[in-house]
Amino acid sequence: MTSVLPAACALEMLHTYSLIHDDLPAMDDDDYRRGRLTNHKVFGEATAILAGDALLTQAFILLAAEAPGESVSAAERLRVLQIIAIAAGSLGMVGGQVVDMESETKSVELPIVEYIHTHKTGALILASLQAGAILGGADNRAFAALTRYGECAGLAFQIADDILDIVGEQSQLGKDVGSDVHRGKATYPALLGLAESRRRAEELRDLAIEALAPLGTKAEPLRALVSFIVDRSR
Amino acid sequence: MTSVLPAACALEMLHTYSLIHDDLPAMDDDDYRRGRLTNHKVFGEATAILAGDALLTQAFILLAAEAPGESVSAAERLRVLQIIAIAAGSLGMVGGQVVDMESETKSVELPIVEYIHTHKTGALILASLQAGAILGGADNRAFAALTRYGECAGLAFQIADDILDIVGEQSQLGKDVGSDVHRGKATYPALLGLAESRRRAEELRDLAIEALAPLGTKAEPLRALVSFIVDRSR
Repeated sequence: MTSVLPAACALEMLHTYSLIHDDLPAMDDDDYRRGRLTNHKVFGEATAILAGDALLTQAFILLAAEAPGESVSAAERLRVLQIIAIAAGSLGMVGGQVVDMESETKSVELPIVEYIHTHKTGALILASLQAGAILGGADNRAFAALTRYGECAGLAFQIADDILDIVGEQSQLGKDVGSDVHRGKATYPALLGLAESRRRAEELRDLAIEALAPLGTKAEPLRALVSFIVDRSR
Repeated sequence: MTSVLPAACALEMLHTYSLIHDDLPAMDDDDYRRGRLTNHKVFGEATAILAGDALLTQAFILLAAEAPGESVSAAERLRVLQIIAIAAGSLGMVGGQVVDMESETKSVELPIVEYIHTHKTGALILASLQAGAILGGADNRAFAALTRYGECAGLAFQIADDILDIVGEQSQLGKDVGSDVHRGKATYPALLGLAESRRRAEELRDLAIEALAPLGTKAEPLRALVSFIVDRSR
């Protein structure tokens, strides 16, 4: 028994905290998320800020706690915590959101869009794969394979999400279709066109699957996952 | 060489994050802090929220990192991180702020005020003493002594702060005198009167000093600290 479950809960908490704070009036000012009223619409802005702060902190409490019967060492647990914290912080998710806020309504180039995507969403996806690798006792080769997969799948996810914002159904997206366009956000389709964006997402999907080669059939769920991510945007 | 310095930096980051978020328009809506414009007044609300999030996360990055030449074990480092995270989270600082926000303009009783004080400010003061104890290699007796000191000194600090809000000079307080009263915040002087509040602060100071007895002269700076905290409110 390893501490994969607490780490998975912690990652979900970090994701939820970032959504609650991103939805705030001072940030993206969203009233709906996954078809339901956002936290600040229901509980007020102060509580939403504090709920995000509490979830962010609780993630680290979980990551630092010894799981019952766990087999990872304290040093490994610290390493997992650090990887996840760096992915969540100013060099990861928060940094991506800062650049995203600053880029709104400005005309930005592709490298900026890629920075936003790889940091705002990609960093936590990558960290979740690396955390799983460490907690699952992966060797260096498997760790490198999962890292490469995480980088490619994370960016593929975001390009697919950008495409869905234009061509998707609201039920697929969980938020208003066209909200990126209305907000003047720079997206892959806006900069590269729909066809080229699709080509890149598919290329990244193939690279992600290629990276998993050393892991054999054990990695089948990850192959299916990145295919699902990219194919749903067709 | 122990990792006291990174831990001290992390605690300062957590304190700063909480001040930045507390000052937000949706929370205490303060324009000045320590005589200077607050973060959101200078950089805007979105950046202030994100700066707080980044500082909160960075604190855990620092606490998880191995300090050069440090002598504490990974297990001890995890314990310090966990104590500090619990003090910062929903059972500590965030929890105190939630109750504080909910109590504004309501008439509240002393146990609620004490809950707010021991959680909003007391928890992090206590955690800093316990973190220092662990990183300094304290035995159980010294750890217990510092815990008791931290509980008493933390509450004494907050009562003294409440008193200064009424009788202090702005330069002493670093914020507007009377701001608690204007905001309808429940304070010790409002509930117990000035004389009884002073008596309690002095009692807590004496209890804090008494708790340090097992530590001998090494604890002299801590005795001076709690005396300074209480005596400046006279």
